[in-house]
Amino acid sequence: MSSGSSPREHLSEEKLARAALTYLAEPGDPALGALLAICSPAEVLAAIKADMLPGTGPGCGDTPASRAALDRALGRWRTRLPMLPHEERLADTSRDGLRLSCPGDTDWPGALDQLGQARPYALWLRGHTDLRFACSRSVSMVGSRAATSYGGHVAGEIAADLGERGWAVISGGAYGIDAAAHRGALAAEAVTIAVLACGVDYPYPAGHADLFAAIVGQGVVVSEWPPGCRPARTRFLVRNRVIAALGCGTVIVEAGERSGALNTARHAATLGKPLMAVPGPVTSAQSAGCHRIIRDWGASCVTRAADIIELLSPLSAPDALAPGGGLDALAPDGGPGRLSRLDPDAARAASRDDLDPDSARVLDALPARGGAGTSTIAVEAGVDLDTVLRCLGRLAGYGFIERCDRGWRLRRS
Amino acid sequence: MSSGSSPREHLSEEKLARAALTYLAEPGDPALGALLAICSPAEVLAAIKADMLPGTGPGCGDTPASRAALDRALGRWRTRLPMLPHEERLADTSRDGLRLSCPGDTDWPGALDQLGQARPYALWLRGHTDLRFACSRSVSMVGSRAATSYGGHVAGEIAADLGERGWAVISGGAYGIDAAAHRGALAAEAVTIAVLACGVDYPYPAGHADLFAAIVGQGVVVSEWPPGCRPARTRFLVRNRVIAALGCGTVIVEAGERSGALNTARHAATLGKPLMAVPGPVTSAQSAGCHRIIRDWGASCVTRAADIIELLSPLSAPDALAPGGGLDALAPDGGPGRLSRLDPDAARAASRDDLDPDSARVLDALPARGGAGTSTIAVEAGVDLDTVLRCLGRLAGYGFIERCDRGWRLRRS
Repeated sequence: MSSGSSPREHLSEEKLARAALTYLAEPGDPALGALLAICSPAEVLAAIKADMLPGTGPGCGDTPASRAALDRALGRWRTRLPMLPHEERLADTSRDGLRLSCPGDTDWPGALDQLGQARPYALWLRGHTDLRFACSRSVSMVGSRAATSYGGHVAGEIAADLGERGWAVISGGAYGIDAAAHRGALAAEAVTIAVLACGVDYPYPAGHADLFAAIVGQGVVVSEWPPGCRPARTRFLVRNRVIAALGCGTVIVEAGERSGALNTARHAATLGKPLMAVPGPVTSAQSAGCHRIIRDWGASCVTRAADIIELLSPLSAPDALAPGGGLDALAPDGGPGRLSRLDPDAARAASRDDLDPDSARVLDALPARGGAGTSTIAVEAGVDLDTVLRCLGRLAGYGFIERCDRGWRLRRS
Repeated sequence: MSSGSSPREHLSEEKLARAALTYLAEPGDPALGALLAICSPAEVLAAIKADMLPGTGPGCGDTPASRAALDRALGRWRTRLPMLPHEERLADTSRDGLRLSCPGDTDWPGALDQLGQARPYALWLRGHTDLRFACSRSVSMVGSRAATSYGGHVAGEIAADLGERGWAVISGGAYGIDAAAHRGALAAEAVTIAVLACGVDYPYPAGHADLFAAIVGQGVVVSEWPPGCRPARTRFLVRNRVIAALGCGTVIVEAGERSGALNTARHAATLGKPLMAVPGPVTSAQSAGCHRIIRDWGASCVTRAADIIELLSPLSAPDALAPGGGLDALAPDGGPGRLSRLDPDAARAASRDDLDPDSARVLDALPARGGAGTSTIAVEAGVDLDTVLRCLGRLAGYGFIERCDRGWRLRRS
């Protein structure tokens, strides 16, 4: 199933440049995202090395303010030039069983392109599973590190059941719910994907060295950060958007009121992905976040694997699709949302009259030309931020709007 | 606080007739409901005694089929004539501390009029609490008889908290969640209302004699059935519509997949009342019904009293209204639904364009003239029955439709 760069295959100039950029810039850096929208990775890398920005055009550094931001970014990236491995070593990604997947590669999950300019520059992989194929039929399952025995049990059971039905389980490799989700999938001999906030060879948390080894053997460990990179607090938050984007939907199993899992949930909602939560005792603080997103964000209340599969493939009975079967053909990229993943034309046919009042108001708040940021839209629509996020996801799923440099814009039909 | 018939006050002819009808006909008898829509209770009682139907007009027995149904009903009612107490005894309702409340009485809860022709003929009461006043700020809380310790604990805590904030708790007097809800309210020295499926003096379940005595002392025990009447399986289902109609909203605390509490939930949804459910462990069969109505019926996921109060009085902060205060002035009758209870004109102003797609489809399925039954509407709209029920409740709450003899009809604006 291995694809992308095979062992000893040397990288193309573009892939080499993308590999180098993962060393120089933090993932999700808006300045680099903007540059990559108009320049090739090799041009950007050359510009960083030469300490000279590439010629600026519309949408990129065309105002003094954004020009200054790019200058600052260039300085930031150049400070890491000494850490860049020699080109020979960079080109040989097969050392230590690593692979590199870049946009356009056969194993690149198209679902990541929904992230727009926040798309990863490249992904480092460890393990032989084809990432794109696995993600085409996958569930992101995350939750509290301080999970209760109830949460751990339920996460493991649901993950194992999803695995038995041919669905890959994506999580973050952390203690608690993440580990239980990975282990459930492994127990079912299913594919599981760990998306880390450090290098794929960096043992964090240290107690999970065995778990990561098992995932490498049966699935794939993924990271936007280069080999050897240490985790950092902010990196977990940046990483969460990738967990949300890779899965066909996101399930929160346990989450306290301030759990990082709710950050992943918010990314899923923003992307218009089905968002689900597993309820628990109302007396448990670890379920409070789940109950809140069910009540306030419109997350679906799911209690077992069959509920999840039904939400992700509403046109088929839970067991109608053989493992690795039909849905992949329908949804090679994971798709932007429930409706459009299954029938893009039906989705686009939905008229404004069918929208709920909040979504209609948010749609009205988008400017006729150009884009607007989420908070601008919230002010214009007079709707709170949580609701705006939910509505934007829904509107994107219906094909009314799409992401752009400045946030969201109306989609030309 | 006593109102309606005071001790030793003898009943008016109409109230006397209504008291008699509770002995002769089962509550919710559609034939009697139809007759009472066009004849006075005294006329109907006289007709039963004389074995001669009153003159029929439009909407009542105007087809051979419905005429035959009325003839059968007359036979049914006449079989119970021997059980009718002597008029002298019937007139003296104050014996044994009983009271009778009839439509139009000052203590009659106007919320019951939402039941249309299924409205109770009269209510027998034991206890001095003013029923109308108590219901104007009340929550119906029901659940499984085979409650877990978790469910009993949570029902008791939430009921006590509601009681402390000045809300009455309505339930069915059964073992399990019902008892925990009543006891929680009693512990908070709050009003609680038990709606029974047997006479208010009939000790069922026998183990709850002390509980009912406590409720009589601090709240009120209510029944549509006359004193001495025994419970029966079908009577619980008929009774449930009154529990749903009396409260400003209904909360299900624990319910198995086939729990009778889901029947009460369905009545609440049909009436357009806010429907709420308390989640629990997904590993507990007693929470499966709660999770299902959150997922499939759109019930709100609530975890504490403050969530419930916020849903029932969305325009006020949870504690802004003093116990027995402002909301009662706004909502003398409990009102038909969330929006219209707070601002009838705002509710009616909602346009068709604001409706969700399912509700719009259901609204389109109603005939331009006359009414249609729920299942006919489901077929016409091409929407499943659960969804139709939810949408009908919502549409009634928004003032688009209203109940009629044949089910539902468009409301003339």
